Amino acid sequence: MIQPVDRNLMPAIQDKLDNLNKPKGSLGRLETLAMQVALIQHSLHPRLIRPCHLLFGGDHGIEREGVSASPREVTRQQMRNYCLGGGGVNVLCRQHGFQLRVVDVGVDYIGDSADYIGDSADDIRFVSRKIGFGTRNFRYEAAMSRQEWAQALQVGAEQVDACRAEGCNVIGIGEMGVGNTSPSSILMHLFTAIPLVKCVGAGSGLGDAGIRHKLSVLEDSLARFEALKRDHAGDYTGVTDTIRHFAGFEMAAAIGAMLHAAEEKMIVLVDGFIMTACMLAASQMDAAVKDYAVFGHQGDEGGHKLMLDAMGAEPLLHLDMRLGEGTGALCAYPIVVSAVKMFNEMDNFSHANITKYF
Amino acid sequence: MIQPVDRNLMPAIQDKLDNLNKPKGSLGRLETLAMQVALIQHSLHPRLIRPCHLLFGGDHGIEREGVSASPREVTRQQMRNYCLGGGGVNVLCRQHGFQLRVVDVGVDYIGDSADYIGDSADDIRFVSRKIGFGTRNFRYEAAMSRQEWAQALQVGAEQVDACRAEGCNVIGIGEMGVGNTSPSSILMHLFTAIPLVKCVGAGSGLGDAGIRHKLSVLEDSLARFEALKRDHAGDYTGVTDTIRHFAGFEMAAAIGAMLHAAEEKMIVLVDGFIMTACMLAASQMDAAVKDYAVFGHQGDEGGHKLMLDAMGAEPLLHLDMRLGEGTGALCAYPIVVSAVKMFNEMDNFSHANITKYF
Repeated sequence: MIQPVDRNLMPAIQDKLDNLNKPKGSLGRLETLAMQVALIQHSLHPRLIRPCHLLFGGDHGIEREGVSASPREVTRQQMRNYCLGGGGVNVLCRQHGFQLRVVDVGVDYIGDSADYIGDSADDIRFVSRKIGFGTRNFRYEAAMSRQEWAQALQVGAEQVDACRAEGCNVIGIGEMGVGNTSPSSILMHLFTAIPLVKCVGAGSGLGDAGIRHKLSVLEDSLARFEALKRDHAGDYTGVTDTIRHFAGFEMAAAIGAMLHAAEEKMIVLVDGFIMTACMLAASQMDAAVKDYAVFGHQGDEGGHKLMLDAMGAEPLLHLDMRLGEGTGALCAYPIVVSAVKMFNEMDNFSHANITKYF
Repeated sequence: MIQPVDRNLMPAIQDKLDNLNKPKGSLGRLETLAMQVALIQHSLHPRLIRPCHLLFGGDHGIEREGVSASPREVTRQQMRNYCLGGGGVNVLCRQHGFQLRVVDVGVDYIGDSADYIGDSADDIRFVSRKIGFGTRNFRYEAAMSRQEWAQALQVGAEQVDACRAEGCNVIGIGEMGVGNTSPSSILMHLFTAIPLVKCVGAGSGLGDAGIRHKLSVLEDSLARFEALKRDHAGDYTGVTDTIRHFAGFEMAAAIGAMLHAAEEKMIVLVDGFIMTACMLAASQMDAAVKDYAVFGHQGDEGGHKLMLDAMGAEPLLHLDMRLGEGTGALCAYPIVVSAVKMFNEMDNFSHANITKYF
């Protein structure tokens, strides 16, 4: 159960903000960010402690329908690359002091974790929690069973607990899963009612023909989903049955992590299109999760802006990135740090002997 | 004399970018930034070394016309505050590892630097290069003489040399000067031909009536400037005579710093409205300066977006800040670091054994 933040603290936070030695409101988004972090931590002296980044990986049955520019094996190759420290996410984790946990929830690869880990760097932990070798193909059946769904949520929550146990209070979440813009587009469509065509984009690099094919596969999947719901009503009784029908294991784990991090009153850094879709899905399960979400980056993927708008979310950065892995969220982290430092370290008017101006 | 960057290196840089293990182009703005930095340094292995932030302070004769929400004494008070480490700029310099040089080029205050320095922190240097106790009032006469203008440019160049001597190759530039959105608006108007009314905004916090008054003062100043040019043609023979008529000492020093940093092939981090106006003025003197400019932040001040558009500049951040001091540029610095680190540290497709995808 997620507790919404206690808005009774807002006037005291605003008062502290307005007394920093600067024209009122002149820190712009840094002020709203400081407000959010102070509310999350219910403190006038918020602190960011031992940030962790969770990178969940999994494969997708829908990839078999040719909906991605990248072949399935890239999921495994990139997961290994993250463990070796050579991915984009590694660069940013090192830059910003994040511990990285690379979690295999469902990569299509037989082999034990030693194959991944190799000579992984010290600040990277590989965790094997494989639920399956990729999800089932949601064009024809549910991507995962109720049991698998519960298991994936649990993996996410457990990873948050592992970070929390080390003192962490801010968590980034990213993903690797070839094909995962497809379920993200569908969840966006279902939970915002935005027409599917506006929810579908190029992913890792489809051309126009590829996007048209992807759209037709997803349209067909939705039609069959409606039929399945009609014919097997007992299997589709709530929002989570909709999510598990389409989501990847890595997405379900991310949703579990988001929900549990919010329960633990941690800051959740939300990345691009796929992680925004997961936050959208999580907010369908418990709307209060959004109080804890800091949206890092508006990505290049078609529809991301529309989804953010539908959620009333204003991301910190617009850098046209579409790498995934949580890199957009990580790029935004120093802005969060700046907001907290400004709030804590700027002198105030009375102490600094500065004429208060507006 | 500024050398434009050597664009012959572009294909080699692009080739390195395209071979990093990510979908092509998926780092968005980080890729264009890496390209710019690599061009500036003419290197496939760019490095960011010992960043410095120059904060120039000065007062403005035009402040006497009631064009600012803040009283004149705030310039001096804030300069002292920066030396004591309590300003917004200090927080960000500490966060991002910038040495801070607080340079008095024309603050209206009698007293020696000891009054400022107090128990200043180690990473802050105070430099006194006072040219005058504020500029003259440009409503009635040139803000500074040709000699003062040359002197201020020289102060800026000299500060760049001091940073350069310590190995620095990336420089942030900020300002403190009550009233300095007024000359910035006029320079914007004169160098872009955008109507003055669209160049004038709230500054540190004017209301609607204040903005109307400011506009009328600036309109009157421009009319009198035209008359002066007619009657004293020998005093107005070129673009620098236009700049010195309006600019503050801190703005002239910033222009001198920008031009010299570009001569030295350093990265110049451009802040908000006032620093963008200075970069615009600098580019009127030598267009090649723009090759070295990284625009950090689009601020809240009316007209900033229009000015950036007129310059073809796309700032990295949009955080609605309007604090000045160079804080917008500093907030953007970690993005520049990310771009360079991605370019240098991400593994490439062939080495990481990843199927190349698009």
